[in-house]
Amino acid sequence: MIEDQQLILSTEDYSLLTDLYQLTMAACYVGEGLEDKPASFELFVRHFPDKFGYLIAMGLAQALDYLEKLHFTNQQLEALQNTGIFAHAPAKFWSLLESGRFTGDVWAVSEGTAIFANEPLLRVEAPLWQAQLVETYLLNTINYQTLIATKAARMRDVAGKDAILLEFGTRRAFSPQGSLWAARAALAGGLDSTSNVLAALKLGRKPSGTMAHSLVMAIGAIEGSEDDAFSAFHRYFPTAPLLIDTYDTIAAAERLAEKVKAGKMEVTGVRLDSGDLAELSKKVRSLLPDITIFASGDLDEWEIVRLKEAGACIDGYGLGTKLVTGSPVNGVYKIVEIDGIPTMKQSSKKATYPGRKQIFRCQENSQILSDRLGLAQETANSNEQPLLELVMQQGKPVNPPETIETIQKRTQASVASLPPETRRLNDPIPVPVNISNALESLRLSWIANH
Amino acid sequence: MIEDQQLILSTEDYSLLTDLYQLTMAACYVGEGLEDKPASFELFVRHFPDKFGYLIAMGLAQALDYLEKLHFTNQQLEALQNTGIFAHAPAKFWSLLESGRFTGDVWAVSEGTAIFANEPLLRVEAPLWQAQLVETYLLNTINYQTLIATKAARMRDVAGKDAILLEFGTRRAFSPQGSLWAARAALAGGLDSTSNVLAALKLGRKPSGTMAHSLVMAIGAIEGSEDDAFSAFHRYFPTAPLLIDTYDTIAAAERLAEKVKAGKMEVTGVRLDSGDLAELSKKVRSLLPDITIFASGDLDEWEIVRLKEAGACIDGYGLGTKLVTGSPVNGVYKIVEIDGIPTMKQSSKKATYPGRKQIFRCQENSQILSDRLGLAQETANSNEQPLLELVMQQGKPVNPPETIETIQKRTQASVASLPPETRRLNDPIPVPVNISNALESLRLSWIANH
Repeated sequence: MIEDQQLILSTEDYSLLTDLYQLTMAACYVGEGLEDKPASFELFVRHFPDKFGYLIAMGLAQALDYLEKLHFTNQQLEALQNTGIFAHAPAKFWSLLESGRFTGDVWAVSEGTAIFANEPLLRVEAPLWQAQLVETYLLNTINYQTLIATKAARMRDVAGKDAILLEFGTRRAFSPQGSLWAARAALAGGLDSTSNVLAALKLGRKPSGTMAHSLVMAIGAIEGSEDDAFSAFHRYFPTAPLLIDTYDTIAAAERLAEKVKAGKMEVTGVRLDSGDLAELSKKVRSLLPDITIFASGDLDEWEIVRLKEAGACIDGYGLGTKLVTGSPVNGVYKIVEIDGIPTMKQSSKKATYPGRKQIFRCQENSQILSDRLGLAQETANSNEQPLLELVMQQGKPVNPPETIETIQKRTQASVASLPPETRRLNDPIPVPVNISNALESLRLSWIANH
Repeated sequence: MIEDQQLILSTEDYSLLTDLYQLTMAACYVGEGLEDKPASFELFVRHFPDKFGYLIAMGLAQALDYLEKLHFTNQQLEALQNTGIFAHAPAKFWSLLESGRFTGDVWAVSEGTAIFANEPLLRVEAPLWQAQLVETYLLNTINYQTLIATKAARMRDVAGKDAILLEFGTRRAFSPQGSLWAARAALAGGLDSTSNVLAALKLGRKPSGTMAHSLVMAIGAIEGSEDDAFSAFHRYFPTAPLLIDTYDTIAAAERLAEKVKAGKMEVTGVRLDSGDLAELSKKVRSLLPDITIFASGDLDEWEIVRLKEAGACIDGYGLGTKLVTGSPVNGVYKIVEIDGIPTMKQSSKKATYPGRKQIFRCQENSQILSDRLGLAQETANSNEQPLLELVMQQGKPVNPPETIETIQKRTQASVASLPPETRRLNDPIPVPVNISNALESLRLSWIANH
């Protein structure tokens, strides 16, 4: 039974996690005898989120996992038939779905790679109906994880390599699964750990966290004071940071400092979640010079810069709402070749480049100089590296999944390879993306012929 | 085995879908012998997203489903133990989790109800460890669905009751599950249907959609022209709208109009996805006066108003990116009473009201005049209606889940009951929320005693 008002999502469901038109178009392709024509689609981002100079590609692992497992159950086909929408669809459509798997090739840039506008993160080469059908899911996973990885990379970049960056966004993430994917992309983008227990355990990491105001309020109400709450929590979690801003931050810090001086308590860290974080952190540092000071509360890369400029004494940042929500990465997935014929779109402001493409990155001394967007069949110059690699062949992944650590290192190297004007927060300038002569010729000849 | 790099989410996993500190605090409560103290937590929103005059409460169904099913497996407990984080936790913590279920009561406003800042959408009354543990998941589901339902209600409000509003956000939603929840909340908030096949089928609805540029490009490239693509799609889906902006919108409309006049084709609708939608829609209407015109492309409530003011001839709107992403609803979940003692927080800008509360809504002729935020034990005046109802008792739902249709009707009535200045997009003024004398006295006496 498909119907389920609670919207519980299982792996089996993923084949139906698509826009209706992907299925109606597939039926149309079958009817026209075009379903198996070799097609190539590319996934790219036309316009970046405001003030983003680069994007960090992320989400490929989940995309490949989806492609590998894609299939339809009889129950799903029945549910589709019962909608009545496919009354005029050819019978062969159903047998195609019934036995259908994803049998195509995928070329993609590695997760953790910096990319720029109009550069394909991924290309699917598959029978037309398959390449079309997978659009919605691929965009969903890559758009979101790329957004979060990029934000995480930006936060790491401004916070510096020694800052402790914690992912605290689960309560604000857009759905439970959204919180898992956010945690993965945040870690791969440069954060140190996540408070999300499930995400951490699934990724083989140790979850992290401090304590909440409610503990101070609950134990304080029953046992008498904020200090009783601190002592209680410290008893079971002696290395966990204490949250000291429930009532009077500085008063709490002063009392802790006295206990530390008197040798009554070993405090390793505190968290500040409200008030003037820069000023409070300086006072807390003077009272408790040897502890780790964490700050949280609607922080993002801009606020980290502001705090650092204000001389805040903050060692670690809890990053939540502004990391895991906000304006999206608006990736699109467009057909670039069908049956050997390059295609492009001419709609105003939404025109695309025709043909299967490759990104040739020109790098010197680990610094990106420029990119060249060319055709897939072009060869790289001696100082260039092609970024799109074959990651899935005939429906099977070419390599085993990478670890988060590997991807995190790649992200770090990617960001370090960018020019300062691309990394800066204010008015960043993207790395120049030159269009190859061959690609420009193809585009012009396409226009001349249409 | 918990570890799973693909982050597949199953219902079993939900107990670990929480911030680490919920579990460490639970262990601390056990150690202090406080785990079963009766506690009350309330979920509310301090500050609304920019320019929102009201919120439509949503996500309760998924919250209750989570509470009802909550339990820990041995495998999960083992994974937690293996982190080493709980080395000093009392042994009883593990037996508590092992046998633990949610056994508390929940009071909540019905889904589809308009609420204002600081009004509790939900109150959990349960043993302290349980009430604390569920915070993260409850916030996750209610924050997101409330955001989407509110946006959907705003879009419906400005588009008018006759407009066709379609949810097209899956490719931009934050994770696959995020897209399902977005579809649910959007329908319950006032949209007509969703393109998300899985969401539609799970909710017992018919999915909707048109066609994509890729079909025009693929069939056009092989069979020769845009018109061939239209004819092909029309053959199998004679009532589906045609997407006419791949090359030249007006030229495509003119050719379709000729076919319609000549009786060669029955066109029921078209979609415009780029260009000047107001101008194009007027021209298309003059060419094809009897068809349904859909528009899409980064539309939101502001853009709908702009299009209507520009005299656009648009019957239906495809709503995606700006419906399902963006700044979040920042709901919080705060302890308000422990062991019969009211609690509150005094941090700067983050102070809370103490005690278990009720919203008393004063309404006349189906119009909201004002709300009174009082204590739960206060009685309603004759012209007031209490909004928080008992929805879960001792861990069991009081009523079966509501249908989307029921919730959608409630949303519609809620929005209709708001004053015009609360509904408007520019500088909306929320309905006045008065603090009852009893609540204010409690707050003052709490402050006096601390």
